[in-house]
This record gives sequence, structure tokens and C-alpha cells, in this order.
Amino acid sequence: MKTPKKLVLAYSGGLDTSYCAVHLSKDLHFEVHAVSINTGGFTQKEIKKIEENAYKMGVSTYKNIDAVSTFYKKVVKYLIFGNVLKNNTYPLSVSAERIVQAIEIIEYTKSINAQYIAHGSTGAGNDQVRFDMIFQTLAPEIEIITPIRDQKLTREAEINYLKENGIDLSWEKAKYSINKGLWGTSIGGEETLTSHKKLPEDAYPNQLKKQETEKVKLTFFQGELVAINGQKNTPEINIEMLNSLASVFAIGRDIHVGDTIVGIKGRVGFEAAAAIICIKAHHLLEKHTLTKWQLQHKEYLANFYGMHLHEGHYLDPVMRDMESYFKSSQTNVSGHVFITLKPYHFTLDGIQSDHDLMQAKFGSYGELNSGWTADEAKGFIKIIGNQNKIYQQVNSSK
Amino acid sequence: MKTPKKLVLAYSGGLDTSYCAVHLSKDLHFEVHAVSINTGGFTQKEIKKIEENAYKMGVSTYKNIDAVSTFYKKVVKYLIFGNVLKNNTYPLSVSAERIVQAIEIIEYTKSINAQYIAHGSTGAGNDQVRFDMIFQTLAPEIEIITPIRDQKLTREAEINYLKENGIDLSWEKAKYSINKGLWGTSIGGEETLTSHKKLPEDAYPNQLKKQETEKVKLTFFQGELVAINGQKNTPEINIEMLNSLASVFAIGRDIHVGDTIVGIKGRVGFEAAAAIICIKAHHLLEKHTLTKWQLQHKEYLANFYGMHLHEGHYLDPVMRDMESYFKSSQTNVSGHVFITLKPYHFTLDGIQSDHDLMQAKFGSYGELNSGWTADEAKGFIKIIGNQNKIYQQVNSSK
Amino acid sequence: MKTPKKLVLAYSGGLDTSYCAVHLSKDLHFEVHAVSINTGGFTQKEIKKIEENAYKMGVSTYKNIDAVSTFYKKVVKYLIFGNVLKNNTYPLSVSAERIVQAIEIIEYTKSINAQYIAHGSTGAGNDQVRFDMIFQTLAPEIEIITPIRDQKLTREAEINYLKENGIDLSWEKAKYSINKGLWGTSIGGEETLTSHKKLPEDAYPNQLKKQETEKVKLTFFQGELVAINGQKNTPEINIEMLNSLASVFAIGRDIHVGDTIVGIKGRVGFEAAAAIICIKAHHLLEKHTLTKWQLQHKEYLANFYGMHLHEGHYLDPVMRDMESYFKSSQTNVSGHVFITLKPYHFTLDGIQSDHDLMQAKFGSYGELNSGWTADEAKGFIKIIGNQNKIYQQVNSSK
Amino acid sequence: MKTPKKLVLAYSGGLDTSYCAVHLSKDLHFEVHAVSINTGGFTQKEIKKIEENAYKMGVSTYKNIDAVSTFYKKVVKYLIFGNVLKNNTYPLSVSAERIVQAIEIIEYTKSINAQYIAHGSTGAGNDQVRFDMIFQTLAPEIEIITPIRDQKLTREAEINYLKENGIDLSWEKAKYSINKGLWGTSIGGEETLTSHKKLPEDAYPNQLKKQETEKVKLTFFQGELVAINGQKNTPEINIEMLNSLASVFAIGRDIHVGDTIVGIKGRVGFEAAAAIICIKAHHLLEKHTLTKWQLQHKEYLANFYGMHLHEGHYLDPVMRDMESYFKSSQTNVSGHVFITLKPYHFTLDGIQSDHDLMQAKFGSYGELNSGWTADEAKGFIKIIGNQNKIYQQVNSSK
Repeated sequence: MKTPKKLVLAYSGGLDTSYCAVHLSKDLHFEVHAVSINTGGFTQKEIKKIEENAYKMGVSTYKNIDAVSTFYKKVVKYLIFGNVLKNNTYPLSVSAERIVQAIEIIEYTKSINAQYIAHGSTGAGNDQVRFDMIFQTLAPEIEIITPIRDQKLTREAEINYLKENGIDLSWEKAKYSINKGLWGTSIGGEETLTSHKKLPEDAYPNQLKKQETEKVKLTFFQGELVAINGQKNTPEINIEMLNSLASVFAIGRDIHVGDTIVGIKGRVGFEAAAAIICIKAHHLLEKHTLTKWQLQHKEYLANFYGMHLHEGHYLDPVMRDMESYFKSSQTNVSGHVFITLKPYHFTLDGIQSDHDLMQAKFGSYGELNSGWTADEAKGFIKIIGNQNKIYQQVNSSK
Repeated sequence: MKTPKKLVLAYSGGLDTSYCAVHLSKDLHFEVHAVSINTGGFTQKEIKKIEENAYKMGVSTYKNIDAVSTFYKKVVKYLIFGNVLKNNTYPLSVSAERIVQAIEIIEYTKSINAQYIAHGSTGAGNDQVRFDMIFQTLAPEIEIITPIRDQKLTREAEINYLKENGIDLSWEKAKYSINKGLWGTSIGGEETLTSHKKLPEDAYPNQLKKQETEKVKLTFFQGELVAINGQKNTPEINIEMLNSLASVFAIGRDIHVGDTIVGIKGRVGFEAAAAIICIKAHHLLEKHTLTKWQLQHKEYLANFYGMHLHEGHYLDPVMRDMESYFKSSQTNVSGHVFITLKPYHFTLDGIQSDHDLMQAKFGSYGELNSGWTADEAKGFIKIIGNQNKIYQQVNSSK
Repeated sequence: MKTPKKLVLAYSGGLDTSYCAVHLSKDLHFEVHAVSINTGGFTQKEIKKIEENAYKMGVSTYKNIDAVSTFYKKVVKYLIFGNVLKNNTYPLSVSAERIVQAIEIIEYTKSINAQYIAHGSTGAGNDQVRFDMIFQTLAPEIEIITPIRDQKLTREAEINYLKENGIDLSWEKAKYSINKGLWGTSIGGEETLTSHKKLPEDAYPNQLKKQETEKVKLTFFQGELVAINGQKNTPEINIEMLNSLASVFAIGRDIHVGDTIVGIKGRVGFEAAAAIICIKAHHLLEKHTLTKWQLQHKEYLANFYGMHLHEGHYLDPVMRDMESYFKSSQTNVSGHVFITLKPYHFTLDGIQSDHDLMQAKFGSYGELNSGWTADEAKGFIKIIGNQNKIYQQVNSSK
Repeated sequence: MKTPKKLVLAYSGGLDTSYCAVHLSKDLHFEVHAVSINTGGFTQKEIKKIEENAYKMGVSTYKNIDAVSTFYKKVVKYLIFGNVLKNNTYPLSVSAERIVQAIEIIEYTKSINAQYIAHGSTGAGNDQVRFDMIFQTLAPEIEIITPIRDQKLTREAEINYLKENGIDLSWEKAKYSINKGLWGTSIGGEETLTSHKKLPEDAYPNQLKKQETEKVKLTFFQGELVAINGQKNTPEINIEMLNSLASVFAIGRDIHVGDTIVGIKGRVGFEAAAAIICIKAHHLLEKHTLTKWQLQHKEYLANFYGMHLHEGHYLDPVMRDMESYFKSSQTNVSGHVFITLKPYHFTLDGIQSDHDLMQAKFGSYGELNSGWTADEAKGFIKIIGNQNKIYQQVNSSK
């Protein structure tokens, strides 16, 4: 009797990956090891539920890997350092998660000596690219199997198949497809397939529950969120706490339109209260503590860091180079940021930092300056304007 | 008898330039020609008042130049094309105005054959640099005179001087120094000299007057705002109208912390409803109509366009090069943007455009794709991942 | 009887495309219309020869399109404006040609209402990407046929096939595969498949024939090479003439190692005397006539222009945006550049230009300056150093 | 009796700083401590001579600080990592030296508790900016004294003054002003004040002494030049050795035209055999070992690193951020580079590296590929061309 071929299935508990689990084990006779990676989206109860379902689908083992901390340390930290918002809008919530999920899954696959890996992505989107690229790079010897992409079944066909195999769960299609994680929740629905319709209020996971404003103090140390309202914790826990504080105000909602890796435009709603507040607060602290050129060049790199991450190029060593840059830039990004949460929005009220370049005894902008004289200012202006004056002199009459 | 020396004074009607007017005419015997440049900040009534005061100060002539349209065409248009927000925050309201004011003033000075030009800037800030650089570049032969910068008088000394010269107006110091223009209002006060205090609600020029939401449709043609709610007008008038619509919602307030040209950090409050909405709406339309690389490279240029403009380098020919780029990039940025105004914030609801790259018949993101097969997707991923795979193969074991 | 299907074949006269011609007409019964695009590589005699061979292979028609001028106007001009050298080395000789060839071929295909287009690229390299992408973009309805890529035949198999079909030409394999065009000649051989071997002298198309140095004066007008040694001509003819003058000195040889579109590294020898001299001379003229920021920002764009062109993204509208920028930047790039040609290298001796910013009456570098005083210089330095001083003051003791 | 005020003088032994030494000690009664910083330009004999002269001028102490190794570690290393050539031409020989000299001088000044520092720069050039900025930043409490800048004396006046003070050395004006250091020699003369004249052969410090070619093997480890022809040594010694090997071929000569910090254009000849060869060899090794995106983004940063260094902003923390990036990028830049030295030029013949991405077993460019199939290539091209196809489809008929 042949040893069954060992396969790891990236399992979310949804219809697609449930179909995969049954199909791979029953039809294709794989020994299926289901794994789910929690990057902040699942409660313990949900994981329990996923586990129960997995075994119903005939998997040999099921494992949930808690990758919240890994997710923070490998990716989210640098997204904050870089204030990365794709097209000045989207905190890359899903793109960032997929990278870490792919790495965790392939590491798990290698650790149990499986020769196959399966995932439930379609052939239309970004996730297949991120998963396949990372799998192929980190383990070129492991074969990738993608039943959903290959077979293009309808939901009905999948449900019928499962029924025929004795699995009769209620697979009601949610009106909105939701992806929740530490760095935000994405929301897709019929509106996001158009260019002009907005998502209805109730499509967002959190609803406005608080009307009175609330003040929050975020404390950063070398760019990392180390405390909220003076209470210290790990950055990833602080992000979750900040999300709890802010999501009752329905803060951080928007719709992003961006370029997918496959070249078409995609539109997706998101709610990412903690991500948006964290980035904006961190950026304000940087405006006080970094020099002009630090701010300028960081932005060039951050825009590309976001693009490469989004497109699944996390393993390109250029990402490590950029992370070195970001890390160096955070040396003095330490201090408090004062924020007021309000219904649907928030204000950045100010900062306090030992590294605040504005609070030098040096001179205050717009006040009578003590740092230099009128003549020194004139000398400065005269010389800094030299090249344009020369240009004008040489070219004006021609 | 000697002909008096002809001098143009950039006159705002405030204490500093009033002092200049009297001092230059009475003490220094210049023939003072006062000029004010309206870049959207003055009503007709205010201009009338400035004119009256000017003559009280002993000027020979007073002239107001309406430069709103020039301001739009020379600068604001490109700030919209580039979605320019300094440090992702500030629409460069004041910086942009000063450039056009300086150009208008020096052109006026040359037109009346004055040999001197005076302005009321101090030696501490940005404005002196912008004014002097543009004056010196466009008319190196004209001498610049800056009594405020040179004499560093206190308010009291100026008021006393004016009294001694028979001018006893009420020069009450406003709690907040306000600069209003087409592209926004800046607000300075004791809070903005700190890093941690926010401006009080009533420091902002507009207060929340409307609670119910309001839908607005902005229409862009090749990047320019050509209509609001279907009603066509010039872009500069549309901006003013948009500001009226939005400022009753107290939209567009924030505090900016940035690098001054003289190297210190400056903090300033602003309210710029039209600028913020216009830029964000325009950017959304671009996300639908520009390619990925168009979006990416525009941002590099726009960040520098903003920096150079802020620092007074408007006359550097690199600005013309960038404007050519921006203009080319706007070829297809035409369509409607749907917005909802709400108290203190707004949402971008969607767009409609004949050039919308998302609405190609090509394939929809996340849906079952009709544009390519699963195998084609696999081929794509395999090859696009080549370099990282090679890198890993070559370097992983070393 | 069925009408034969009309097909355009990109025909070079070599073994691969000869195989295609016979295979497509005899086996697949296409009506084959062979076309070759001259971007500077073919003499009239060579074209005559290609034509004769084409008819031997059974094509219905043969056409040569002279695209030298188009090549210059669409691509080469901007490569000069941008001083584009891939990785500071390679003038993109072949990459640039392929773009124009693809456009010409697809335009011809549409003009004769052919429904098929064939080319002889393999599946390993860059050319297939450039051809297919441009064909698919400009004529998605035309089907692309690539026998060489699909069938992966050996040279022997191809030669035998041709013999079996009555074609017995001498297909001796050249030791080096050569691609010649207006903007340079590329050379591949067994050495370029290694990382450490250099090409032998005689692999290069031109050999050193002149020992005594020769002076050349290049005249540019708005960035275009309008005259050599005072003799005016079109830029494309001037480039050819410059190549004749310089290639007897064996100038412009190098080996380029770069990233192919398919993710692997490729190494190729090249000889591009005119391209290298032209770019270096043009760049020197720019250093005299452009401002610091014009030079800096051009380089960012030019590096990406080169990358996108190399990768076949010529039709991305971002290329038009960049071309607008480059065009604007050339307004004052007019003047003479003095060059000395020597064996294997050349020197840039100097320039003369009415727009030379160095020859302003303004002040000379390093000489006793008349443009400003010592005190003005001190004021300049004091203020331009402000931010670093503040940074040090704030952070040095922490 | 008053304690004389302690002053450190940056002393080179030339006429200007000799004048300063006498003037500061005799006329202004400073206790003058002369210091010279050797960044590779002085032999022991020259230093001995400088010392003798210094004491003739009446200085209290003289000290030479050997900063060659510091120069390499603080600056040159990163110039190699970044392949920094200003405007693709100039290795920043002098600019780079000045930074390290300034830092060494101010550290020395602080170490002996001097309250004054003097240097011999004029008010016309770059050096004053670099010196003053670094002095003021690192020791704002120390006063800077610049007699040459302030007094604008002619050579004759200086010579006469020295004679009157009993110093009658032969101050013959060299036809060319030479600045020699580890990273190259700069040459100024009457020709460099024009735009069109080249320097004569004999203005360059080294003359062609060798005709037969010579092969050299450079070995890099993580971006640093660790061996020449297999012989290991410190990078700074290797650079000096490489210079000896190459300068007999008169390699590395050129004329640079660039933007000075004071806004005017400056032209300077240079000879920098080791710098040019080292950068080009290092760059070639990078082309083999870095990914496409590593190469692309490094260049953006390197261009700005060069600009900021040139302009004296070495102490801006953004330089540390960039250095972190460069360091990270060098992880795999290890291997041998094979070079042939020839009269006036050199060729890069190839490389050998364990990290060579070209020598993966993955597939060879242009050969029949084994890494992927024709269909996979077609899938890749189809999808990578998607956006341009969509763009064309949406916009072509409008």
C-alpha cells in the first residue's frame, strides 16, 4: 500500500478551502494537513470553529498558528516606520497579512516534510501571486496545488459537491466578503465592483457607538507604539487596543482604488482605525523630530516599499535594505502624540518629545529671531538665490 | 529740487506695512506707491478700507491688483495636478500665494519705473526669502528695502511712531494672525508656538453651521475643476464655490509642522476646505484613470514641486519641466467625483469617467477572470518571481 | 476553396525566420507577407539579399520599411535628452530598436488587414515580451504566432527542415550573434554567457584603424544633434556620421550586465561609438546650461525611462509624461561641444553656449568673488546650517 | 598679563594660511596652534616641510593628524558602496576630504580647549561652507576666524606682509592649484575658468609611463576592496596601491562642471585613477549580485548622498540613514573583478562571485530556456501587458 502524499492546505474555514479539503483528501487521496494563520483576524472561538469544520472535511490534522507578533515584527513595524499608505490611502492591510501568512505556511510545510501545498486563491487576484511567489522562492521543491484557480467552480457546484460528500453546512454567502487582521479589515461587495457606489454604513464591521470625544495619548519609542495613555504593552497589543478605542467612533473607513499585480484596477472598502491613527500620529512625531531631508527621502523609499510589498516582492533583498534605512531613521522618533477621537474622524492635537526640533532654544518661526541678524538673513537669501538669478541673467533676453 | 525716489510698497493695511508707508515717505522721502495683491483673501470692502488707510499713511498712489485668476493659472492648477500636500498635510496655501504676489509686485514696480521696492517681512521667516528671491531674480537692478526686518521694532514702538505722525488708528492685536487666500487660510497663535497645544475651535475662520450631510458632484476636465453639481464655471470660481459649500461643515482644518526655508521647524494651523477636497477628489479620479507608473512617478515629482515652491524656487526652470510633466499626465483625468460633506469631514463616494481603467470590459478584480486562464496566471507568477527565486537559490546556503 | 489566412512575418533573413516563413506557408497554409524594419542596421545590399531569400522561402510579398527616422524621433531623441545609459553603461541599443520595429510591424499588419502576425523570438529572452506586448496592445484582435518559441527546434532540425523543403542555403552559424542599428551594435557569444570572459577584439564590428587623434565639434540645438563640425544635417544622419568618425577609433565598446524582463541576468557586448559620445557630449552641455535641480530630477526620470523602455512598456502613457518633461528641460541645451577622438577612448574638451550658466558675469568659482561680500557668505552659511545645528543641539546630549 | 587667546589654525603650508599664521599671532596676539590633516595628500617629507614652515610663522604648536583611515571609514567607503560620481563624472575627491578634515580639526580644537578656530578659505567657494557648517554644528561655542575671506588681500599684499614680518620664502604661484588626497587629485588653472579649454597634459600630476597593458584583479568583500591581485590589505592601502598601478597609465582624468553650494557653476580638472576604477569595478560586481530593484533604488539614494555630501550636509542624520541602506545592500557584494589597464583607459573584463545571480543553474539569457515553457512565457507576457492593453482599450477611440 502506497504512503499517501503529504499536503498542507491553507485553510480558512470558508466554502472554497472546505471544497479543497474534501477534494484533495477524497478525490486525490492526499494526506491533508490544514493550517490557518492568525494575523489578528480570528478570535479563539472562531479558531475552534474552523478546527471543527476542518476535521469534518476529512483533514488529517489541523493547526492554527498565531502569527500576530510575527506579523508586527516582520511587516507592520516597517509600515509604521515608513508611514506607508498605498496611494496615500490604504494601509495595505490585506497585502501585508498575506506575506506573513505565506511565509508561515511554507515554513510549516517544510517542518512536517510535506511535498505539496494547496491554497484556495482564484486566478484573478493578488493573493495567488503573493502565495505562489513566496512558496516557490522559499521551497522550490514543493508543488503548489490550486483547485479553485484550476477548476473555476461556481459556489453552487462547490456546495453540491460538499453535499454529495456528506457535508451539509450552511454556506450562506455573506453580502460582503470581509478580511480582518491586525492592520485593518477589508470589505468587498457589489458596490466595490463599480466605480461610483459607496459601501453602505452597515457593510463596515464597526458602527458608531460613541458620540462624546475622547482623548488618547500614544507613546512611541524609536518609532514603535510602546504605550497608550501611559500604559505600556507590546506594540501589537497596543495596536489592538487602539483599534478597540477608535472603532467605536467608526474611524478609519475609506475605499481604496489601486493597481493589482495582474494589471487591472481593483476597488476595496476598508476600516482600519488603528492603522490610520497610528500612521498619522507617527508621521506627526516625525515631522517634529526628523530633518527635512530625512522626511523627503523616507517618502521615496516608503512609496516603493509599499508597492513592492503589495506586489508580493517581500523576499527581494531590497526590502531588507529599505528596512535598514527605516530603522536608522527612527533613532529619535520618540515621544507622546496627543489625539482626540471623534465620530468618524480624529484630530492630531500635538506632540511632546525630547527630540523635538521645534523646541530648540534656537529661534521660533515667525517671531523676532534671535538666531541671526537681518544682514545675515539678507546674505543667506542673496546667495541661495544665486543660481536662479544667473539663469535669468543668461537666458532672459534670448 | 531733487525728484523724489520712486518706491513700490507691498501694502497689506496692517501695522507693519503702515509703519513702513509713513517711515518711507516722511523720514526717507520716498515717493511711495502702495500696492496690494488680492490672491483671494480680500473682499471689495476690505480693499476699499486698505486703500483709505494707505492714503492716510501718506502714499502717493495705491493700487490693488486682482491676481486670483493668475494665482490659479500659475500655481494652484499645478498643485492640483500634483495633488501637492506638503508632508501629506498642508496644501501650501500661503507659500503658493506669496510667489504670485511677489511676481505681481515686481512686475508692477517695473511698469511704473520705480527704483525701489519695500516689503514688511521680518528676518525670521519664509516670506522674506520668497519676496527677495523673486524680486532679485526678475529685477536685479531694483533695490529692496525692508524696514521691519532691519529695525526690529516692537508693536508698541510702531504704534507710538504712527501716533507721533498723527495716525491714531486702533491697532488692536488680533489673538490669531490670519492669512486668507484662494487656496486656504492659515492661522498662527500662541498655541502654534508650542508643539502640543491645539488651536481652539473659534480660532478657525469658519464654524460648523450645518449638520445634515450634503452631496456634491465635482467635474474635472483634464485635471481642472470645471463644474460643481453640473454648473460650469472657471476653476478659480469653482474653488471659491466649493469653499463656501464645505466651510459651513468646518472641513479642512489641520495643523501643519514643517521645515522653514531658514532651517527651523514652524507650526501653523490652517483651514482649507476647498483645497483639501479638491486635491483628494482629483487624486481619486487619477487612481481610476492613470496607470500605476503614472501615479508612482507623479508623486516623486509632486513632492519636490511642493518643496521647491515652498522654498521660493518657483523661478527655477525645473518647475517648468515639472509642470510640463503634470500637464501631460492630465490628458485623461476627466470625469465626475461624488462627494458627501459631513460635519468636520467628507467622504469620497466614487467617480464616473469615460477614461476609468477599472471599467474596462477586460476583467474584474477578484471575480472569476475572463481575461486569462489559470495556466496563464501560473506562467505569469512563475516568471515574475524568477529573480527572487534565483537570489534565494544563489544566496540561501551561504 | 478557402481564402488563405493572411499573416505578416517579421523577417530578418536569418535561419529562424526563414524556417518560420517556410513552415507558416507550406505546413500551415498561411499567405505570408514578410516584412523587415530597418532601424539603421541594414545596407541597401543587405536588404536586397533579404528580399531574395524571402521569396525563396515562399512568401507572398516582402517589404522593407525604413524606420531610421521614426526610430530617432520616437525613441533615440529622448534617450539623448535623458542621457539614458542603463546601469550607467548600456545605451539600450537593442531594446530601443525592438520597440520601434514592433510598432512598425503591427501598423503594417493592420494596414494590409492581416489577421495573424508571426515573429521568430524564443521563449527565453526580452524580445518576445516587447513584441507581444506591443502587438497585443495595439491590435488585440490579431493573433500572434511564434513557431520558434513553441517548437524549440535545434539549428540542425531547422536546417534539415529547410533542406527537405528544397532550400539549401549556407546557414553557417556566426561565432557571434550581432544586432546592428542606429543606436549601436550588440554582440553575443560564448564569452557573454560567462561572467568572467571578455569578448576578443575581433568580435567587435569595428577595428582600430586610426592612431592620430581627431577633433570633432558637435552642435546641439535644444538637445538635438544638429551639426557635426559645422555641417548641418538631420540628427539621425549626424548620428550615423559620428559613428563613422568614431568607430575607426574603436570607441564605445563595453560589456553590459543587466536584468532581463524575465528576471534573469543577461550579459551582452556592445559597440556604440555614436551613442556613447553623443550622450556624454550632451550631458556635458547640460551641466553648463541646466540648473542643479534640473540635472537632479532629470536623472530620476531618465533612470526609470530607461527601465520602462527596456522592459517593453513604451506604450505606457507615463512615457509620454516623461517625454514632455525631457522636452521642456531641453529649452536651453544649445551650443557646441568640443571632443577629441583617440584610440579606444575620447575626451570632452569643453563647450561653448549662449546659455552657459558658468559664463555669467556674476562671479567665478574659486576666484575673489564680486557677487557677494564675506559677511553675506557668513550669513548664508549660518542660516543654511541651521537645521543641522538644531539637530545637534537637541540630540547630542541624549 | 593676559593669557593669550588659544586658536587652532587649519594650516596647509601655503601662502594664504602662512599669512593667517603670522597675522593671527603677531597682529591679533592669538596663541596659534597649527594643524594639518592628512587625508592622503601628503608624504612624510611634505609634512616635515609644513611643520618647519609653521614654526617660522610663529605658531606655538604644529600637529599633523593622519586621517587617511578615518577618511576611508567615514566617507570613501560609502562613496564606493553608492558608486557615487557627481553628475556621473566626479568622485567628489575634494568635497569628501573637506568633511573629514573639518571634523578632525574641530575635534582637535575641542581637545586642546581652544576658543577660536581659523581657516584660510575665501568667500567665493565651497570650502568655507563645509568648514563653517561643521565647526558651527559640532562646536557652536567656538568662534570662527577667516582672515582671507574677510580681508580679500592679493597675493602680492600677502607676500609683502610676510616679508615685512621677516619671512622671505619663495611663494611662486604654481600654474595649477592642486589638491591631492586618497580619493583623487583636483586641478584648477586658467583653462578651468573657461568653459571650452581643456587642461594640457602636463597639468595632470601623473603622466603616461606605461604602454603595455596590465591585468589587475580586485577583490571585494561586502563592498570593500580587500585585496589586489590576491594580496590582502586594508581598503585604504589597497586604494593607494591601485592608484600607483593605474596612474602610470594616466587613467582617471576628466573635467567636472558642477554646481557649487553658492549657486554658481564651477569647473575643475581631476585625476582619480583609483576612485574611478574602484567605483566602476564595484558597480560591475553589483550588477551581477544585486537584484534589479536594489540597483534602481541605490542609485536614487546615491545621487542624493553625493549632493548632500558635496554641499557639506554630512552631519545631517539623513546621511546615517543612507549609510545604513548602503551597508545592508552590500551583504552579497563579494567577489573578484578582472580589469585590464591600458594607456588612458581601462576595461572591465568580468567578475567571479559566489553570489553571482547570472550563474544560477536557473536558465541562461538568450539560450533555450529550461526554467519555463513557451506557454508560461506567453502567460507572463499576457498578464504583464494587461494595464497597457486596458489603457489602450479605454482611451484609444476617445
